[in-house]
Amino acid sequence: MVIKMKDYERKAYYHETDQMQIIHHANYVKWLEEARIDFMDQLGFSYFEMEKRNILSLVLQIELNYKNPVKFNDTVLIKIKVESYNGVKLELSYEIINKATNVLCVSAKSKHCFISNGKVVSLKKLLPEFHEKMLSLI
Amino acid sequence: MVIKMKDYERKAYYHETDQMQIIHHANYVKWLEEARIDFMDQLGFSYFEMEKRNILSLVLQIELNYKNPVKFNDTVLIKIKVESYNGVKLELSYEIINKATNVLCVSAKSKHCFISNGKVVSLKKLLPEFHEKMLSLI
Amino acid sequence: MVIKMKDYERKAYYHETDQMQIIHHANYVKWLEEARIDFMDQLGFSYFEMEKRNILSLVLQIELNYKNPVKFNDTVLIKIKVESYNGVKLELSYEIINKATNVLCVSAKSKHCFISNGKVVSLKKLLPEFHEKMLSLI
Amino acid sequence: MVIKMKDYERKAYYHETDQMQIIHHANYVKWLEEARIDFMDQLGFSYFEMEKRNILSLVLQIELNYKNPVKFNDTVLIKIKVESYNGVKLELSYEIINKATNVLCVSAKSKHCFISNGKVVSLKKLLPEFHEKMLSLI
Repeated sequence: MVIKMKDYERKAYYHETDQMQIIHHANYVKWLEEARIDFMDQLGFSYFEMEKRNILSLVLQIELNYKNPVKFNDTVLIKIKVESYNGVKLELSYEIINKATNVLCVSAKSKHCFISNGKVVSLKKLLPEFHEKMLSLI
Repeated sequence: MVIKMKDYERKAYYHETDQMQIIHHANYVKWLEEARIDFMDQLGFSYFEMEKRNILSLVLQIELNYKNPVKFNDTVLIKIKVESYNGVKLELSYEIINKATNVLCVSAKSKHCFISNGKVVSLKKLLPEFHEKMLSLI
Repeated sequence: MVIKMKDYERKAYYHETDQMQIIHHANYVKWLEEARIDFMDQLGFSYFEMEKRNILSLVLQIELNYKNPVKFNDTVLIKIKVESYNGVKLELSYEIINKATNVLCVSAKSKHCFISNGKVVSLKKLLPEFHEKMLSLI
Repeated sequence: MVIKMKDYERKAYYHETDQMQIIHHANYVKWLEEARIDFMDQLGFSYFEMEKRNILSLVLQIELNYKNPVKFNDTVLIKIKVESYNGVKLELSYEIINKATNVLCVSAKSKHCFISNGKVVSLKKLLPEFHEKMLSLI
C-alpha cells in the first residue's frame, strides 16, 4: 500500500509577524501542528475523530532549526515524513519550504505518544487500521 | 463596603509585536482577559474557582478603541470599571495606560453573562457574596 | 462597475482553542485581519503592496459580537461589507459564518484610516484607482 | 565577578490554554523568549537597547522537552543557564518549573547568533562589556 500524501499549504499571516518584520519563530510550532493534523486527516484518522474516541496525541519533544525567515504574504509548503513509529511512539520530521522560491526555511522534528484516560496506549490494539497505515509510511 | 482595586500591570512582550513595530491589535483582547481575571481574583472569586464550581463566564461583546500604540518593553496599567451588573449581565470598561507616560493607549468595553451546565444563570443565587461585592462596585 | 467579492474561507485550528473547548475569542480579531487582507488582495490593492508604497492601514476601532462558538475543525466563511468610505476613513462590517451549518458565529465592525510617513492621508489622491473601487462597493 | 541571576516568574494565562485544558505547547517558545529578554535585562544589555544599537539576536535552533503540563493559573519559574558562548554563538538551556510544586514541566535549549546590518557579528568587539559578562556566566 502506497499512500501519497499532499504537502500542507499555508499562507503567512500579518498577525504572525514581529518587529523584525519576519514571522515570529514561535508560530512555526503552530504550523507544525496544523500540518500534522492535516496529515492525520489525509490518513483518514483525524485528530478530531481521535479526540472524540478519547485518544489524545501528546507532544513529547519538538526541535526546530531556523534556516531562512518566512515573511508576511509568503506561501509555504510543509512536508512531513514519518521517521519512526512503533504503535506507542511516533517521530515525525518536517520541512517548511517557501513555495515560490523553494528555499528551505525551517526543518523540524517532533515526538509523540498517545494517551487514553490518562494512560499511554498502543495504537496497535486501539486503532489497528491506523497502525498499519503508519507502518506503511516509514 | 468600599473595595479598593489594584490596576493590572503588564509588560508588552516582544512576541506580541508585529511588523508595524507596535503591539499587534489582537493582543489587547488577551490583555483585557488577563486584567479581568486579575480583577476577579482581587474580589475573591477567581475565574479558576468559578470554573471548578462549573460556572463559566462568557464574552458576549468586546469593543476596542485604539488611541495610541503600545510598543515592546512598555509597561501598561489596565484599569477596570464595572459599568453595569444585575446578576445576569456584566458590563466592564477598561483603560490601557502607558505606565511611564500616562498616555491612554486603548479604551475598551466588554459584556458578559455567566453559564452553568450550558444555561445562563444569575449569580444572585449561585454566588450571593460575589453578587453583593459586584453591586458595591457600580 | 460591479465587483464580486469572494468570502474568505478559514479552518479553525487546534492551537486556537481554549480550555472552554471553543475558539478563544481573541482569535477572531486575527481572522478579521486575514479576511480584510484577502479582501484588499481581491480588489487588487494588497496590503503587502500598500506597505511597500509606504501606506499603512491603521485600526482605529473594533467591535465584536459573539453569538455562537466556533470549534476546532469547523470551517468558517467571513463576509465583508464596506459600511462607509470617504478616502480618509473606512468602516467595514463582517459576518463569521459556520460553513457547514450556516450559523452566524460572530458579527463585527472595524474602523480604519490610512497613514503615510506618520500622517493621515486621503487615498483619493494617493491611490485614485483603489479609491474608485472602494466607492463602488458602498 | 559573580552575577546572581533571578529566575523569570510568569503566570500561565487563560488565553494560553487549549482544549486539552493545558497550556498549548507553542506558548513555551514565547515564554523562553520572555525569560531570555529578562535575562539580558538583568545583565544590563537589554534586547530593547541592542535593537536600538542595530544589533539583532537571531534564533537558530530551539529544542523543547515536554515533561509535565502547565495549567491555567499556575505560576512558573524559568531558570536560564549559559551552555556555551564565544562572542558569535550563544547556547542557552532552560528549565520551566511549577513554582508551587517544584515539578519540572519543560526543559529546553536555544541557539543564537547576533547580526548587524544583515551580517553575523562578534559581540567581543561590538559589545566588549557584555561579552565579558557572558563569559563569566559559563
